Amino acid sequence: MTTSFTVNGRNYSPRNCPVVGICLDGSADDYLDAAMVRGRLPNLQRMAVAGWRGLARAQMPTFTNVNNTSIVTGAPPCVHGVGGNYFFDTSVGAEVMTNSASFLRADTIFPAAQLAGRRVAVVTAKDKLRDIFAAGLIERGGIAFSSERVKDAEVATHGIARVEDLVGPGPYIYSGEASVYVLKAGVALLESGLADFLYLSTTDFMQHTYPPEAEESLDFYAALDEQIGHLLRLGAIVGVTADHGMNAKQRPDGTPNVTYLESVLEQQFEAGFRVILPITDPHLVHHGALGSFAQVHLPPGSALAVDEVIEWVRSLPGVTEALDRETAARLMELPPDRMGDFVVCSGRDAVLGRTPEWHDLSQLKVGLRSHGGRYEEMVPLLFSAPLVSEYASRAKGDPRNFDLFDYLCNGIQPCTSPV
Amino acid sequence: MTTSFTVNGRNYSPRNCPVVGICLDGSADDYLDAAMVRGRLPNLQRMAVAGWRGLARAQMPTFTNVNNTSIVTGAPPCVHGVGGNYFFDTSVGAEVMTNSASFLRADTIFPAAQLAGRRVAVVTAKDKLRDIFAAGLIERGGIAFSSERVKDAEVATHGIARVEDLVGPGPYIYSGEASVYVLKAGVALLESGLADFLYLSTTDFMQHTYPPEAEESLDFYAALDEQIGHLLRLGAIVGVTADHGMNAKQRPDGTPNVTYLESVLEQQFEAGFRVILPITDPHLVHHGALGSFAQVHLPPGSALAVDEVIEWVRSLPGVTEALDRETAARLMELPPDRMGDFVVCSGRDAVLGRTPEWHDLSQLKVGLRSHGGRYEEMVPLLFSAPLVSEYASRAKGDPRNFDLFDYLCNGIQPCTSPV
Repeated sequence: MTTSFTVNGRNYSPRNCPVVGICLDGSADDYLDAAMVRGRLPNLQRMAVAGWRGLARAQMPTFTNVNNTSIVTGAPPCVHGVGGNYFFDTSVGAEVMTNSASFLRADTIFPAAQLAGRRVAVVTAKDKLRDIFAAGLIERGGIAFSSERVKDAEVATHGIARVEDLVGPGPYIYSGEASVYVLKAGVALLESGLADFLYLSTTDFMQHTYPPEAEESLDFYAALDEQIGHLLRLGAIVGVTADHGMNAKQRPDGTPNVTYLESVLEQQFEAGFRVILPITDPHLVHHGALGSFAQVHLPPGSALAVDEVIEWVRSLPGVTEALDRETAARLMELPPDRMGDFVVCSGRDAVLGRTPEWHDLSQLKVGLRSHGGRYEEMVPLLFSAPLVSEYASRAKGDPRNFDLFDYLCNGIQPCTSPV
Repeated sequence: MTTSFTVNGRNYSPRNCPVVGICLDGSADDYLDAAMVRGRLPNLQRMAVAGWRGLARAQMPTFTNVNNTSIVTGAPPCVHGVGGNYFFDTSVGAEVMTNSASFLRADTIFPAAQLAGRRVAVVTAKDKLRDIFAAGLIERGGIAFSSERVKDAEVATHGIARVEDLVGPGPYIYSGEASVYVLKAGVALLESGLADFLYLSTTDFMQHTYPPEAEESLDFYAALDEQIGHLLRLGAIVGVTADHGMNAKQRPDGTPNVTYLESVLEQQFEAGFRVILPITDPHLVHHGALGSFAQVHLPPGSALAVDEVIEWVRSLPGVTEALDRETAARLMELPPDRMGDFVVCSGRDAVLGRTPEWHDLSQLKVGLRSHGGRYEEMVPLLFSAPLVSEYASRAKGDPRNFDLFDYLCNGIQPCTSPV
């Protein structure tokens, strides 16, 4: 019997079934559409018809760490502190990656779920997220590991060892299998009774590489769907969302459609601008660190008026929004102390860069698909059973991807197969 | 044999098949998803698999006249002049509806298509659009009528008479049949040889009234799909898009989520603000004139600084963007002389109003679903055959809904059933 628990002002009362939240990294709704219309997603299709399917609004900027952290805390970045994969820490004067729990300003829901009597397991494809997901969890008996580094898992640090004996050989991170493995691990953990409250978070290598209608994408989603079918057959309540969408960011000739912000700002104004691209992470091969969102710091000690710079930036090709720190923090619910002086978003087909030299475009072998802006904001949200009436009403407004566990615990009609 | 023709700087070289462009008013992609996943759209599903399906960006503000005019001219509002269903004409000091060809600053593609040897017919559900679609067309032998006023059609004014003998009895405008009739008319015109180059534009009464998964919506889209099947069997190249999406704009309790801009501006600053809601049209029963976009005129002779007012507006609940005229005109490609001093957009679940007294919410019997802002910007785009490689590359960037006839005429692989 699970008791309720409260985290970041939200109460969670999960039913006595296995509960599985899934974040399919980079899953623009088009990926589900393309595979579903070809009959490749029988399980997700059944969820859409017999359960609930709609669109949820992701958290701006539409990056992996920002949205995964929002999902596991049930809160926006102004609460949890992670407003990018990467930021310029003005307190120490250094650019840092937000791949550690030390950046968290709020608890995830997992330690509280574990204390409330659930057996919690979190599996991520990218090891960079593991530390955030594991915060406070392992010492309470939970499990957290990544498919990228399955061999690293030890009981003391990950709550589990010898993962490959349970799930099979660990995959290569730049593959679809890196994500399918995450769902396979969920199935194995559920089947073995090691966990009954799971968060499974995949990686978007495939979506950065292939468009929705490519055979590779169709096969990939079919493989994910197969694992979701196993979870459903094991009696789990399943919820699926994404951290962000994905769009081609290129010109008709296939070359990346980039505006190099640091270069043009220094040419127009003065030297010393610092452009932070919060898509930056250890996995640059996907996207060359090019995304549709930037934080811009004025040159240290500059006398430039930020409003004038913003006004000029708004006229740049590809730019769709430019907002001062305070306005952006309010509209996007971001932590102001981890932001630049202003933020910039670019359009559906456009990305922002620092300088041409800073980016290695030679790694982009198959064109550029990326994310980070408003055009990757709407993502799928699916549940394996219908919503109760209160949540069905709420879902007509502005459901967020980080409401995932709220819906899973409080908003789903009773399941027929209790734990 | 058709010759090519050029309109507004774009060349069109249609193949010798019937060409049919369809605008399904208010068709958020969710409507297609919900019906397709339930097997209710066999013809659109075949188009998605054997032809092409993706998302296109509609024209801001996401209203009917703006987008229909963009589709029929192949150009944005800064070229064709129609930036709303409604605007404040400062030259005469009056609020006017843009339901007449006199507002057009560019030609539609239809007279040129007719001159190039095509038999052009345009059918719209709402009569308000007919005059714009018919501009220059009837005198060149084309056809244009509305399902709202089929009985009005005369050869001299509409290029056709006795439409009900050809298509059947005219429908009631507040019905799904008002839209299905538009497609039936297209089928009849094609079948009878009266036309081979068609634009069919429906109305969004159903989408304002019912969410995607409602039985009424599923039946409605199934009926549209049936007619699209007839068009395909008649050998037409078919392209389908929408003028805008549609979202619930209400609180969890079902009441409309409105910010009354004129009221709050006058309370905060001074009397005399004029808020123009460009969704306003003769069909208020759908939406009570509440949409997610507003043009705001400062009080006449006011000494207020527009930037300060904008800054304050940005802090209002539901507001997502506020931009001065010049910036909005540039970013949204709007005609500055038909705009207010600034524009305001609201979020996925929020609408903008003038004053509580100005809106008759008693007409909103089933909750408020509406459009006008960024969250109704991405719309479906489908073609009945694969794209040629140049257009397939372009479609990876930022295809627009008003590229519809460009793709239909220049971008589709050869058809097998010539006219």
